[in-house]
Amino acid sequence: MRVQIVVGSESDLEIAKRAANVLSDLGIEYQISIASAHRTPDLVESLAKSEEIDLFIAIAGLSAALPGAIASHTIRPVIGVPVSGTISMDSIFSMVQMPRGIPVATVGLDSGENAALLAGEILSLSHPEISEALARYRQKLREKVIQNNNELR
Amino acid sequence: MRVQIVVGSESDLEIAKRAANVLSDLGIEYQISIASAHRTPDLVESLAKSEEIDLFIAIAGLSAALPGAIASHTIRPVIGVPVSGTISMDSIFSMVQMPRGIPVATVGLDSGENAALLAGEILSLSHPEISEALARYRQKLREKVIQNNNELR
Amino acid sequence: MRVQIVVGSESDLEIAKRAANVLSDLGIEYQISIASAHRTPDLVESLAKSEEIDLFIAIAGLSAALPGAIASHTIRPVIGVPVSGTISMDSIFSMVQMPRGIPVATVGLDSGENAALLAGEILSLSHPEISEALARYRQKLREKVIQNNNELR
Amino acid sequence: MRVQIVVGSESDLEIAKRAANVLSDLGIEYQISIASAHRTPDLVESLAKSEEIDLFIAIAGLSAALPGAIASHTIRPVIGVPVSGTISMDSIFSMVQMPRGIPVATVGLDSGENAALLAGEILSLSHPEISEALARYRQKLREKVIQNNNELR
Amino acid sequence: MRVQIVVGSESDLEIAKRAANVLSDLGIEYQISIASAHRTPDLVESLAKSEEIDLFIAIAGLSAALPGAIASHTIRPVIGVPVSGTISMDSIFSMVQMPRGIPVATVGLDSGENAALLAGEILSLSHPEISEALARYRQKLREKVIQNNNELR
Amino acid sequence: MRVQIVVGSESDLEIAKRAANVLSDLGIEYQISIASAHRTPDLVESLAKSEEIDLFIAIAGLSAALPGAIASHTIRPVIGVPVSGTISMDSIFSMVQMPRGIPVATVGLDSGENAALLAGEILSLSHPEISEALARYRQKLREKVIQNNNELR
Amino acid sequence: MRVQIVVGSESDLEIAKRAANVLSDLGIEYQISIASAHRTPDLVESLAKSEEIDLFIAIAGLSAALPGAIASHTIRPVIGVPVSGTISMDSIFSMVQMPRGIPVATVGLDSGENAALLAGEILSLSHPEISEALARYRQKLREKVIQNNNELR
Amino acid sequence: MRVQIVVGSESDLEIAKRAANVLSDLGIEYQISIASAHRTPDLVESLAKSEEIDLFIAIAGLSAALPGAIASHTIRPVIGVPVSGTISMDSIFSMVQMPRGIPVATVGLDSGENAALLAGEILSLSHPEISEALARYRQKLREKVIQNNNELR
Repeated sequence: MRVQIVVGSESDLEIAKRAANVLSDLGIEYQISIASAHRTPDLVESLAKSEEIDLFIAIAGLSAALPGAIASHTIRPVIGVPVSGTISMDSIFSMVQMPRGIPVATVGLDSGENAALLAGEILSLSHPEISEALARYRQKLREKVIQNNNELR
Repeated sequence: MRVQIVVGSESDLEIAKRAANVLSDLGIEYQISIASAHRTPDLVESLAKSEEIDLFIAIAGLSAALPGAIASHTIRPVIGVPVSGTISMDSIFSMVQMPRGIPVATVGLDSGENAALLAGEILSLSHPEISEALARYRQKLREKVIQNNNELR
Repeated sequence: MRVQIVVGSESDLEIAKRAANVLSDLGIEYQISIASAHRTPDLVESLAKSEEIDLFIAIAGLSAALPGAIASHTIRPVIGVPVSGTISMDSIFSMVQMPRGIPVATVGLDSGENAALLAGEILSLSHPEISEALARYRQKLREKVIQNNNELR
Repeated sequence: MRVQIVVGSESDLEIAKRAANVLSDLGIEYQISIASAHRTPDLVESLAKSEEIDLFIAIAGLSAALPGAIASHTIRPVIGVPVSGTISMDSIFSMVQMPRGIPVATVGLDSGENAALLAGEILSLSHPEISEALARYRQKLREKVIQNNNELR
Repeated sequence: MRVQIVVGSESDLEIAKRAANVLSDLGIEYQISIASAHRTPDLVESLAKSEEIDLFIAIAGLSAALPGAIASHTIRPVIGVPVSGTISMDSIFSMVQMPRGIPVATVGLDSGENAALLAGEILSLSHPEISEALARYRQKLREKVIQNNNELR
Repeated sequence: MRVQIVVGSESDLEIAKRAANVLSDLGIEYQISIASAHRTPDLVESLAKSEEIDLFIAIAGLSAALPGAIASHTIRPVIGVPVSGTISMDSIFSMVQMPRGIPVATVGLDSGENAALLAGEILSLSHPEISEALARYRQKLREKVIQNNNELR
Repeated sequence: MRVQIVVGSESDLEIAKRAANVLSDLGIEYQISIASAHRTPDLVESLAKSEEIDLFIAIAGLSAALPGAIASHTIRPVIGVPVSGTISMDSIFSMVQMPRGIPVATVGLDSGENAALLAGEILSLSHPEISEALARYRQKLREKVIQNNNELR
Repeated sequence: MRVQIVVGSESDLEIAKRAANVLSDLGIEYQISIASAHRTPDLVESLAKSEEIDLFIAIAGLSAALPGAIASHTIRPVIGVPVSGTISMDSIFSMVQMPRGIPVATVGLDSGENAALLAGEILSLSHPEISEALARYRQKLREKVIQNNNELR
């Protein structure tokens, strides 16, 4: 069980690290790579075809072709994280509006955390111990809200 | 292994059926339900908490709260299909822009097929026979393109 | 007569306080709670079903499901305040575009004040003393404009 | 207890009638008027200042100034229904983005029904019999979903 | 010949001053007033009906009803200047998309200068001396471009 | 006193005719020409520099450069009518967002009538008989609303 | 000298034919292929790397990755034609907003003709006879406008 | 072989310089000029008609008419660079959505580099030495990604 996080450029590493931290919390092994759909298509293809990977998290802004490019070379699940910028809708639309046949699972703008949690939910189907970690994570989110609410009184 | 397809209203059943057909092709068992995040929140909650379900596909338009409402009650993966309408961006944004902690895997506007294929990719991690079905599906897509291209000459 | 102000996360408390200040000026009792549609759906449900509350003000950004989630559990009026962010249209559309049957009364982006004034207008129908407070508030707004205009000469 | 429904032009009467039908179902007295914020501002002002009205539903497209124009002359609640058109976002933004001090309660695009239901929720605070009608309406919505769901099996 | 500049709130005075400076350069008499379409509709009406005014420049953000409100009370030309904000499209659409019968002449976002120049073009039809001032203004713009271009070499 | 209506392509003649009809009603002489900012820039320039014209109405869709192109060659007022299409925002933004120094007076999408009425308001400053025609036009609009309203009762 | 027109799916062939007709008029040899960035990435790569091609025209809708995918494999010019659909902005943004280093030359929505004309302009730099064909094409466009204008009188 | 870079105003020179630096790297001769489509249409026309120029790069924001204005006077390729601003979509749409017959090759927001690279690709068709420079540039981009990726391990 292994997650490949890919960023299209160095400037998106911050979001990759947010995903990585959550994967660590969930006990999921991962690897971060920099590979550009447009500058290094062969590198993207070789990452996408790697046998050892169960799931991809691809983080990209602007025309944001990275998750789709990975998805074109694999039938493993690909999660896309659109990165905010001047327009921000550009990266959302580029990821969400994939053609019929090649899905990308798009999460929120800059939301490395949700990409990792979705990865955890997916991998938990075959790894019950992740379910427990996810349940604990949810429980903490819930307790944080309740604590904040109590402090308010 | 079981997929629960949920539509927010009867008018979205057509998209559910497109998802269902692809799930059938992949040999994945599914069930279609109508449940509204706003009109029947308890029904959504009870569907979301059902032990027998591995994965949800939630189809909704407008403010499109359905996948998020399901996701709030489960740590199973939830795939969201935004439905087109007068604005269309409304359902996309409502699904993609989930808060930190509760992911929804959004696919393209009206794209029941991609929701089902993503479900297949996710379930194939623990069910290798789905991988084969997915590979055949991809192969057919590919052959269709090549055949169309050949007919053009 | 009591207003329940709900924010989806701590970061929206500032807008809640703007609403609270106006409610105080109008002599309306209120309570502020933190509850998340996605992280604590049960808390949202129990707030929404509270017998003591006449009206809800729900403040949320992004997919902004909070006012709709409250509205799904109550037939009391629910006022939604969309919070600005990277896209800002996301929270507006998520609140405005509710499905038929479950209304949310959406006011302007970040406009805690207008949510409180709308609450005042609603409650004044059964509490004439609020009408007087509202009339005074309007009068002050008007005088402020006239004073600013006079200072300009 | 009386609701004044106002449309900016004859072409929006269809939406007014949808609101009217729901108000009838809820046992709420109403009146429909045609008055344009820009073509008959005096008529709008005189409608807005009418003593007999408890609440306004204003329906308008394009720059959609009607609900705001009514709200500028009254401290009664004003519900705005944006009408869809070539852009559709224009009427939403024009209603939602009211300046501080003068709220409009905006509901969904073309959603006369939700305007009427919101009116019912507001008036039910002082008229308990409307609460019962609203509860029955919700119950029917709920039963319709459950029936549709059952027919699906 | 007199221009009435109206701003919806004090915060827009800066844009009014840019318009005023250009009007001064063109030798056109003007007056700046603060009046809000929603907070002081009577003040807007009395400004709009003033006999001494030839042309209005109305500056407003958000739902930006001010130029339309003035236009509803006069058959003098009304120039609208949309003010930028969180969304910015809101004020543009609210001004541009006026209903049939009541025109507003919308210029660019925050563009007090262009509002004043358009006012000058309009008034120059009956005041030839303004034509000369406008021609000089254009000439200066042109020379500035040519000078910048020359400095570049 | 003469108005030059210019359309960028034959397909926009319908909107030109709506403008022409209103100008006729107001007793204003006009001429309709087809000239494209991009296909016949010299024709646009020669139209724009014509001595006999007091005011221009330019109608165009898509990148909608026509009114700006005319404005670059004249200090007469130029009214722009954006034409709706697949995106519709494109023509609005292209007309509204003119650079500092060269104003275009933009009216609503496809709104030939409002362009003509604005032309009438502008020309009425030096031709009082147009003021009377405009006042009658407004009066008719008003009476139409009141008649529609009466028929409703 | 040879142009490769590529469409992402059969449904875009109509736009390809519009491009092809203009290329024929300009005397430019071309070939139309169907190849999908996501369904047949290897086919796209082999087309992009073909030695015999001088220039690519890539036509695609939705996330519209095709021109970028071609551009990632070649340093020949790639012209992108975004195809309209439910959102239409999606294909524009996906093509225009390419990352630094890998340009795509985007033309208008569905504008096969302009793609071909741009191809002609590019190829004319080394093939003067195309310049003449382009000049004749422009001349015809111009004459058509003038003829339409004359027929109007 | 010569490229003419044109900016609509001094404030866009920064983007012109980014384009110029890349052109220098590619060994392409260029010239930067300031010329405004609206303030100096004659200067734009004379630049566009210059015999010595092979290709234009036009950089502009807002209504961004500059590349289209140049294209209306030449059959040389015109590359447009939309400049970001308050709305940013305005300049993209104004450049992309050119009418049939007069193409502009639009690249990404503020992307002077991509404009220069596209110019290089175009000119390389007749100047093979530029192909080599482009191949080296691509190689460097690729090596930078690989180096960044290696440093990450």
